[in-house]
Amino acid sequence: MLMEVVYVVGHRNPDTDTVCSAIAFAYLWNKWKETGKFDKVMKIDLEAVPAVQGDLNPETKYVLEKFGFSEPEKIDDAEGKKIILVDHDEKTQTLPNIEKAEILAILDHHKIGDVTTPNPILYVNLPVGCTATVLKLLFDITNVEIPGKMAGILLASILSDTVIFKSATTTELDKSVAEELAKIAEIEDVTNFGIEIKSKLSAIEGMSARQIITRDFKDFDMSGNKVGIGQIELVDLSIVESRKDEIYEEMQKMKKDENYHSIFLMLTDIMKEGTELLAVTDNPEVVEKAFGKKLEGRSVWLDGVMSRKKQVVPPLQKSFSEI
Amino acid sequence: MLMEVVYVVGHRNPDTDTVCSAIAFAYLWNKWKETGKFDKVMKIDLEAVPAVQGDLNPETKYVLEKFGFSEPEKIDDAEGKKIILVDHDEKTQTLPNIEKAEILAILDHHKIGDVTTPNPILYVNLPVGCTATVLKLLFDITNVEIPGKMAGILLASILSDTVIFKSATTTELDKSVAEELAKIAEIEDVTNFGIEIKSKLSAIEGMSARQIITRDFKDFDMSGNKVGIGQIELVDLSIVESRKDEIYEEMQKMKKDENYHSIFLMLTDIMKEGTELLAVTDNPEVVEKAFGKKLEGRSVWLDGVMSRKKQVVPPLQKSFSEI
Repeated sequence: MLMEVVYVVGHRNPDTDTVCSAIAFAYLWNKWKETGKFDKVMKIDLEAVPAVQGDLNPETKYVLEKFGFSEPEKIDDAEGKKIILVDHDEKTQTLPNIEKAEILAILDHHKIGDVTTPNPILYVNLPVGCTATVLKLLFDITNVEIPGKMAGILLASILSDTVIFKSATTTELDKSVAEELAKIAEIEDVTNFGIEIKSKLSAIEGMSARQIITRDFKDFDMSGNKVGIGQIELVDLSIVESRKDEIYEEMQKMKKDENYHSIFLMLTDIMKEGTELLAVTDNPEVVEKAFGKKLEGRSVWLDGVMSRKKQVVPPLQKSFSEI
Repeated sequence: MLMEVVYVVGHRNPDTDTVCSAIAFAYLWNKWKETGKFDKVMKIDLEAVPAVQGDLNPETKYVLEKFGFSEPEKIDDAEGKKIILVDHDEKTQTLPNIEKAEILAILDHHKIGDVTTPNPILYVNLPVGCTATVLKLLFDITNVEIPGKMAGILLASILSDTVIFKSATTTELDKSVAEELAKIAEIEDVTNFGIEIKSKLSAIEGMSARQIITRDFKDFDMSGNKVGIGQIELVDLSIVESRKDEIYEEMQKMKKDENYHSIFLMLTDIMKEGTELLAVTDNPEVVEKAFGKKLEGRSVWLDGVMSRKKQVVPPLQKSFSEI
């Protein structure tokens, strides 16, 4: 007979925080079980096993390998299982048949979703940058020591989810928790470690120019004009420097073939916190009107611009309406 | 112009835990605001005001008066307000138009309900006996001192919600937190204090015999016989001693007028953890068969019996089927 376990699982399309939080909380839960350190709140009799809903991205694979963790078991259905949710609490983000599972706990840092339970459970959600920060507090409050390797993946989760503290969701708590974890993990340069991690995701080797442009690309109708805007986030623009000619030619080709008025590609430097905006357009004036800066050749540097949704689309919409 | 505030509000039909938790969390929130002790997680800029959804019961009124708190403001609609929910997170238990409010935090000890938010918030739910226990932890974790009077109402909440630690929902955490609170509040005999509080709810002065019988009364069909079973929970059966003759006569009258085979009234002693079962019946044998004890005159003491649903109805159903 198989021993019954409780699976600790994060959201669909797993990222580093979701995977490492599953591993770390399973560890903490098992420590609680072993030491009785959570007995005052509830009796823990099932062993926790970390799990994921899908393939890991290159960043997460790198982090697990670096600290000597194997990839969690993949599961694709919650029916009949005991489940602990980390890093999500929405039905659209969780396993199929979650309503036929028993949820034992939820640890998260998102908006409060639509997962409900028939019984009282442990549920801790904090408005911070990542789930790893919440877990670090739970380790501390219940006096469970964090091993160095575990501190490493928790720190990686914070750096990944907060984009090395640049994301608007970052709190002072994430920063101070990261500092403590870095000490435990014996990582001296946190920023460098963050770049080391993030560079795995911004790797564009093996991608065609077209793939680089369209990996995250959206079409807009701006005052009757067809406008396309892509974005890639990079830890350093030098990664893409040698590919720029090729990318620009591909943008020109796309514009012609698909009748765009303009195609923009945001090359966002997450460390410098700005964007080099590559532009092929019928009217370079829209860029100047939108951002107060002229195109220099094929691009313009926009300092502080990181968000397509908040900082690029609205001014372009406005300038298209005025030309 | 009115200053914008955030209301801290408990569930409908307020009880002691819901009201005192609203008062205590509003205090804690305002301390966080004042001292910056929660700034690492989130910036707090609104003053919290405790609120209730309805009239207070005699127990809660007694507790507030004893520790010198005034009754919280009554509110009946969430529209346009900022709200913090304590002791509930279900739409059926909360204010109307909660979807038109902004929820800033949820502190609870129940099953996870259907309230959702568009943004990440502070949400702490523990599977413990009452919300006051969760709040005590938050005071401790964030290093906010609990004033003696505040400890008094938190302790009262624990004793009320856990029925002086007799409820099946009671955890070791509730007990150890209560002990700490008792020290702060300088209350030496916690059990006596619990009885003092609970006795306010089991007060039956001013109630007619009929009201005492029918306050919590259910009809059952037992093998074709009409059977009625009422229950009152008391901190001490002596409260009802002087009314027993009168109550018994009224039960006989009800039986005759409404064609019952049997009417039972459970006088449940929450401290002794047992029930004196008053019985008027066409066949006293059903009681003996059900509980293995003969009626002594008009009643029988059933040790350990507290629950009508679990401990009285099933054996009676069975004995009725056998006579």
